[in-house]
Amino acid sequence: MKKALGIDIGGTKILYGIVNENGEIVSEVKKTFTPKTADAIFSTLKTIIDEHYTEIEVVGLSSAGAVNLENTKVLSSTPNLPDGYNQIDFSALCDKKVYVENDANCACAAEYKNGAGKGFNTVLMITIGTGIGGGVISDGKLFRGAKGNALEVGSMKIFADKRQKCTCGRYDCWESYASGTGLKNCATKGAKEYPEFRESIYKDKQPDEITTYDITDGIQKGDAYSIKVFNQWMEYMYVGLVSLTDIFNPDCIVISGGMCSFVDTEMLEQKINAESVVTDVKVLRATTGNNAGMIGAAVLAFG
Amino acid sequence: MKKALGIDIGGTKILYGIVNENGEIVSEVKKTFTPKTADAIFSTLKTIIDEHYTEIEVVGLSSAGAVNLENTKVLSSTPNLPDGYNQIDFSALCDKKVYVENDANCACAAEYKNGAGKGFNTVLMITIGTGIGGGVISDGKLFRGAKGNALEVGSMKIFADKRQKCTCGRYDCWESYASGTGLKNCATKGAKEYPEFRESIYKDKQPDEITTYDITDGIQKGDAYSIKVFNQWMEYMYVGLVSLTDIFNPDCIVISGGMCSFVDTEMLEQKINAESVVTDVKVLRATTGNNAGMIGAAVLAFG
Repeated sequence: MKKALGIDIGGTKILYGIVNENGEIVSEVKKTFTPKTADAIFSTLKTIIDEHYTEIEVVGLSSAGAVNLENTKVLSSTPNLPDGYNQIDFSALCDKKVYVENDANCACAAEYKNGAGKGFNTVLMITIGTGIGGGVISDGKLFRGAKGNALEVGSMKIFADKRQKCTCGRYDCWESYASGTGLKNCATKGAKEYPEFRESIYKDKQPDEITTYDITDGIQKGDAYSIKVFNQWMEYMYVGLVSLTDIFNPDCIVISGGMCSFVDTEMLEQKINAESVVTDVKVLRATTGNNAGMIGAAVLAFG
Repeated sequence: MKKALGIDIGGTKILYGIVNENGEIVSEVKKTFTPKTADAIFSTLKTIIDEHYTEIEVVGLSSAGAVNLENTKVLSSTPNLPDGYNQIDFSALCDKKVYVENDANCACAAEYKNGAGKGFNTVLMITIGTGIGGGVISDGKLFRGAKGNALEVGSMKIFADKRQKCTCGRYDCWESYASGTGLKNCATKGAKEYPEFRESIYKDKQPDEITTYDITDGIQKGDAYSIKVFNQWMEYMYVGLVSLTDIFNPDCIVISGGMCSFVDTEMLEQKINAESVVTDVKVLRATTGNNAGMIGAAVLAFG
């Protein structure tokens, strides 16, 4: 079976390992800090690839940011990665095929090949962290769009009357309501609007000081305000997901990202199937975890 | 060059003609009334196919309703077509390949192959009539989803607080704001809310009596109320299209359907490119018109 070197380039660390065509990791997973300059990142990647050169057919790289159609460069600036990063031609790293793809698309490919979406025809992956990202694979093919930037689902608008400004400067982006940041926004708004706040364990906090963690912790403690905030957040999550279900007709929606453990997947699945015009979607939690980027990049590099 | 028989099955008439692999019609376009029973529709289609059997390689059928994954049946009941229609196995019509696809997907294929979307990699087609439908083709492939029901974009929600009930029974579907029905809804709401209504040429009408036609006519006559209603409708159209642009990263959005001549495509293109996180989308009016279903079905039948 063919082998790929999968490399996940994060803002603080680089993860890498050997992955086979089934999306299984067949080596130890190694880790190194992400260097502070683009040149040093290039050198580090070159060293990693040289180490494993004889064992592998292709190299897959997962990175934050928008990737070009040829899958050789990361075009958009990513705040966690240094200046000049968008100038790197990753295909120059070695004479074998080097394939770079953005982290959300890689995570989708990992879940499709060897995660929660394994065995399904159409897998929609939604990453919920500080923002919201996504990817979709149908009939074995990642949907990339005209320039490779499709599935910017976090920018989908869930209100049409300029109600809430997003950190991106636009209004009513889904991610300003349903991401980790969205949960904090729900908490701030709820502290001003919900009568339950007056009896809440957080009643002495300023509305904008209440954190995402406060809410997830408050739910465990049975705090009525926290539960109401969480339910509103789930409602916003649901509204976006039911729209995306009607748009993509997926077999399953795989939820990943830092916030995924807080999401009530069962409730979402029930509500979506009760309302969507297309039916029988499953809502599942991602299973490839921190290895998603590495596995997905390798899977996509096989082509 | 290969030839297909393209057939568009409508609620009142069936259109058909010979289409080549470039999506060009190479025969006279003929028309017959749609029979009132499923059996009679089957017989009529069989007669049409028999007539052209020796000239063609494949048959493409365009129909309203949701089509199965194998493209042999129309599964969902369509109000304009008779009982039993969803039982017809179209592949039994003849021993050559018979391929059925829903009308929105066919229109997308027609525009992609030989219409406004010709030459583009990723074409998103949006049909605006009584409701809103859609289709997307990228890298030459129609996105169909798990069961063939993708691109139900009219059901995308543009509010998350159950503000307006749609004729489908759900809340806040895009099509209840931005279709022909949506324009009428905007007119009714505007008559109650806009001070301009008191000076309008329609001031003696009841709010729910004002028609889509009244508004399009009122704009021509410079009626301030009609213009305000239209602008609100365009805003709702824009909100849905900018979300879909971020979701699909299309080269172009092709607007078709009964309402397409009223849509301000230039304004939409400017606004979308100013706001979308993915750029350089074109907004174009469909060019294949009444032949879209016939051409698109033929194009898709070639595979």
